Amino acid sequence: MKIESVDFFYLSMPEVRDIGDGSQDMLLVRVRAGDHTGWGECEAAPLPTIASLVCPMSHSACKPVAASVVGQRLDAVEDIARISRAVRENSLDLLQAAHALSGVEIALWDLLGRRYETPVHALLGFSRTYPKTAYASALFGDTPEETEAKAARVRADGFRAAKFGWGPYGRGDVEADAAQVHAARAGLGQDALLLVDAGTVWGSDVEAAAARLPALEECRVAWLEEPFVGGALESYRRLAGRAATVRLAAGEGAHDPHLALHLIDHAGIGYVQIDTGRVGGIGPARQVADYAVRRAVTFVNHTFTSSLALSASLQPYAGLADHALCEFPVEASALARDLTPTPITPDADGQVAVPEGPGLGLDVCPEAVRGYLLDVEITVGGTTLYRTPALTT
Amino acid sequence: MKIESVDFFYLSMPEVRDIGDGSQDMLLVRVRAGDHTGWGECEAAPLPTIASLVCPMSHSACKPVAASVVGQRLDAVEDIARISRAVRENSLDLLQAAHALSGVEIALWDLLGRRYETPVHALLGFSRTYPKTAYASALFGDTPEETEAKAARVRADGFRAAKFGWGPYGRGDVEADAAQVHAARAGLGQDALLLVDAGTVWGSDVEAAAARLPALEECRVAWLEEPFVGGALESYRRLAGRAATVRLAAGEGAHDPHLALHLIDHAGIGYVQIDTGRVGGIGPARQVADYAVRRAVTFVNHTFTSSLALSASLQPYAGLADHALCEFPVEASALARDLTPTPITPDADGQVAVPEGPGLGLDVCPEAVRGYLLDVEITVGGTTLYRTPALTT
Repeated sequence: MKIESVDFFYLSMPEVRDIGDGSQDMLLVRVRAGDHTGWGECEAAPLPTIASLVCPMSHSACKPVAASVVGQRLDAVEDIARISRAVRENSLDLLQAAHALSGVEIALWDLLGRRYETPVHALLGFSRTYPKTAYASALFGDTPEETEAKAARVRADGFRAAKFGWGPYGRGDVEADAAQVHAARAGLGQDALLLVDAGTVWGSDVEAAAARLPALEECRVAWLEEPFVGGALESYRRLAGRAATVRLAAGEGAHDPHLALHLIDHAGIGYVQIDTGRVGGIGPARQVADYAVRRAVTFVNHTFTSSLALSASLQPYAGLADHALCEFPVEASALARDLTPTPITPDADGQVAVPEGPGLGLDVCPEAVRGYLLDVEITVGGTTLYRTPALTT
Repeated sequence: MKIESVDFFYLSMPEVRDIGDGSQDMLLVRVRAGDHTGWGECEAAPLPTIASLVCPMSHSACKPVAASVVGQRLDAVEDIARISRAVRENSLDLLQAAHALSGVEIALWDLLGRRYETPVHALLGFSRTYPKTAYASALFGDTPEETEAKAARVRADGFRAAKFGWGPYGRGDVEADAAQVHAARAGLGQDALLLVDAGTVWGSDVEAAAARLPALEECRVAWLEEPFVGGALESYRRLAGRAATVRLAAGEGAHDPHLALHLIDHAGIGYVQIDTGRVGGIGPARQVADYAVRRAVTFVNHTFTSSLALSASLQPYAGLADHALCEFPVEASALARDLTPTPITPDADGQVAVPEGPGLGLDVCPEAVRGYLLDVEITVGGTTLYRTPALTT
């Protein structure tokens, strides 16, 4: 097959609020080749990512992403790696290209799987898949009471694990943060797994993060996520050395598998969290998962949006029995929910199964989200480089 | 002062060729506050970077860059760091924001320097500056003969150091590469400093790079630049261990000072090359320079475009006597040359002085480059988010 088109669609909730909810807009990717269509999603700011798809060339290592994809052959798994390498090389100096590539790469896997009527995890070489324990991923409430109620609700919904993050956490004092964590544990009950996400709030300040460790360990929090920005390897390493039971988790910002490997090698993390919509797609995420296995670090997905993004994020470790946790967004927007009529849902035991249909195993329903589509037009030097295409299958 | 406006201008040569010449287009930044104007330049793909300035908010950690800058107070050096921190936090998930921030941060330094009639290097705390030995930065010729002629010309022009890179290097066999390096040495003469830039051509393949070491060492090449992509720390470390006299240089792609620190800590490099137009601006570049001093690594600028970009890239190590090399683009486009009527030029001894005028010490002449300006218009959901502003002082 020859890749005929790569289209990006900017979808958005009518109102985007100033909160840590990444599901309020979406950059949907459609790739067409032969008689087949593949779907993907970039976990990215839509407008700059669209611009990186279609911008004029700046020089030989700063080309638009589309230039390395459209017209390429796509017949086998190796073609996806070849196309991805071309994007990395030809768009080396185009920073945003990594996020654009991620959604495109996911759509290429979906397309190839649909053509061969095979799930992506099988194309990746996994002979079987293992269900994952879904952890409900939610924002901290504005008050401990609100957090406790949220946690109780999550538990009542059947989840056996939950993560709370962002909101007020890390923005007040040590006691306020402790109250939030204790509230989450109280609402969740003693037997569920509790995780906390600090959302890089302490920058690289080890002491600020270390002051929160006692409450986290008292409440048997399994991981503290992103106390620091992703690049602060040394701060991570020092904090990891001061924690008794809580492990550190990081990696969601990695826009290249190398960055995740650095966290594994030099930051002392216990969990590496990969967003396939940022790291370059499913292939690079699989590379990180394989490396995590070798280094006894647990791989886990990062996903805050749709079932499409969730399926993509599950593929790279679908066959790894010992890597058994899965982020599951419980507060996703209507936009993220509407994209797939039969979304991925946890079973009564709080387990999520990796979809078994061809490609990413999900029906994508463009009609259901057409109301969220934003018309975008980009013109440079009198030439229209992008105009929102018709959103159809 | 209050920051009143941040404007981006996309300038381009009439024809952009598919070669490794990064001066073929330009993203010029103008910041206005009080009665003052500051200029900066992003080393970035212009269109996605403009999009990152003006895009709609996606969530609390994915906001357009302008939102964290316009309206802010700018009275002291500390304000620049505060504004930069705000951009990093508020645009955490917007990858391209780092490149946008870089040009804006440079313009803030220029503006502050003009207001206080002080050079930026003095604002940075340097009590004096040291001239740098300019190395002529050029592309390899298509043939060894062409490279030798280029090298001879560079030497005749008074340069005491030269770097050749990109073009055919690393794309043919080991012998072809050796012939290119020998040609460069022959043209340059025995006493000049010779540097080679592989432009990440070997990805992470240590053996491919190691096969080139004998010719590089025979020709007394001082550094081999970017044999691998920036993230391949382990490949760098292994290659460094196999080199006898040639040192490794890297860092130009760092869009965050952390990434440069990782190269210093874990990649065994001898030279760290920082582009202020990518790393977040002059402040972050200074952080890297300070760290390089502590770790006995040599700091050097990366610049391939205008005198404005060159001045910005010299400021972070202007006062460091032992860090005495400076990349000087000798094949910059007419666009890059026309921006400043009195450009930075090496003296008869091949030395470059850091400009001593206020701010970046250069007159920026918008009238002279107006012919290169591209009209850009970006509309989302019926609202025009960007239209090329009038290019005036």
